[in-house]
Amino acid sequence: MPAPDATAATNDAPDSAYTPTDRTVPTRSRERASYDREVVHAILDEGYVCHLGFIREGAPVVLPTLYGRVGERLYVHGSTGARPLRMAGGAGTEEPGLPVCLTVTHVDGLVLARSAFHHSINYRSVVVHGIARPVTDPAERTAALDALVDHVVPGRSADSRPANGKELAATAVLRLDLEEVSAKLRTGGPNDDDEDLELPHWSGVVPVARAYGAPIPADDLSPDTPVPGYLTRL
Amino acid sequence: MPAPDATAATNDAPDSAYTPTDRTVPTRSRERASYDREVVHAILDEGYVCHLGFIREGAPVVLPTLYGRVGERLYVHGSTGARPLRMAGGAGTEEPGLPVCLTVTHVDGLVLARSAFHHSINYRSVVVHGIARPVTDPAERTAALDALVDHVVPGRSADSRPANGKELAATAVLRLDLEEVSAKLRTGGPNDDDEDLELPHWSGVVPVARAYGAPIPADDLSPDTPVPGYLTRL
Repeated sequence: MPAPDATAATNDAPDSAYTPTDRTVPTRSRERASYDREVVHAILDEGYVCHLGFIREGAPVVLPTLYGRVGERLYVHGSTGARPLRMAGGAGTEEPGLPVCLTVTHVDGLVLARSAFHHSINYRSVVVHGIARPVTDPAERTAALDALVDHVVPGRSADSRPANGKELAATAVLRLDLEEVSAKLRTGGPNDDDEDLELPHWSGVVPVARAYGAPIPADDLSPDTPVPGYLTRL
Repeated sequence: MPAPDATAATNDAPDSAYTPTDRTVPTRSRERASYDREVVHAILDEGYVCHLGFIREGAPVVLPTLYGRVGERLYVHGSTGARPLRMAGGAGTEEPGLPVCLTVTHVDGLVLARSAFHHSINYRSVVVHGIARPVTDPAERTAALDALVDHVVPGRSADSRPANGKELAATAVLRLDLEEVSAKLRTGGPNDDDEDLELPHWSGVVPVARAYGAPIPADDLSPDTPVPGYLTRL
């Protein structure tokens, strides 16, 4: 871990980095790993779809799902009838809690080297290990659901009808604390071997980004409804 | 499964759909599931980064990695020293083969409903369950590595230096057969409740797509190297 910053640290502030563990230290490309909280938070906050891994009947399952972050807590949600949410709620087991691995990945570029071997991807990813547990506190559930909506479109939760009692009763929210966490990043150009530099193949990086199209109003939207500013800013 | 198409079917052709199994039939939103091979192949071929789930020391792990498809086989690769590839090769176990879940997800749109509850994402995903096994046949390994490069940039494998013996020896390739497979798709606008239609909130879909920037040549690329057509067509 980096040395603490004496000007910023207080007794209340968490360490500026997550503590590496056996399973957050990669076997390969360790120089790409980061445990810095700001780096991790920035990667998480740029996304809204994660891939959630869990074990069902002894086999791995990976499902895409939305997520939100509030401080050092991640939230996922779903129908109370959905399998992972039932499992986390303790269905068929002695106590609630589902071991999960939650992964978020952004692709930033295609890395084309002269050699096929050195082709790569510029990316930023975060991998979180832990136990997902059901959230039952009403205030925490509300904050989590707001965070889930605001991860998709910042500012949207305040401009939509909040969930009513029936909807809340049908929704399970799981929390995963950010404790065992790592980021992994690749940036920059291709790393061709010296003896390949004279080969005639183009080499470099093709940037990749997420692009938003013009908002398409719902068929039943009143035509005089303005497009909100938080959408035009996307 | 749909009825076979008598005009297209032959004894050699696979069924036009994968056979659903307990774990490829979702507990929720079954109307979004598809087992159609063409649908599955199209989703897989549009991507190049999957999220690969496996079990390590009793806990789920989900890592982003590149993949390629050749017919009914998916391939992933990595350093022979990387953990999942060592595990699939039989390290520490009696025989090769790693139970995995490989998931590919494309986000197509943000679905904004009047109610927070009905917010959603338009997406297309494929989930593959199976056993990843090391590929040892040299011709299959070469085809797999070409497919991995061509998934990222179609046409690129023919315009790069193929892997040499040392590189091949350092690379493990795993194969996952497309047998237990499902796609899941959401399309269209928000599904607001009737009683919410008069609320003042904008509703509709914000399209999301992958965008490529102008190729950035490597620092050490000879300036007279033209940008290849397969990049300008991306």
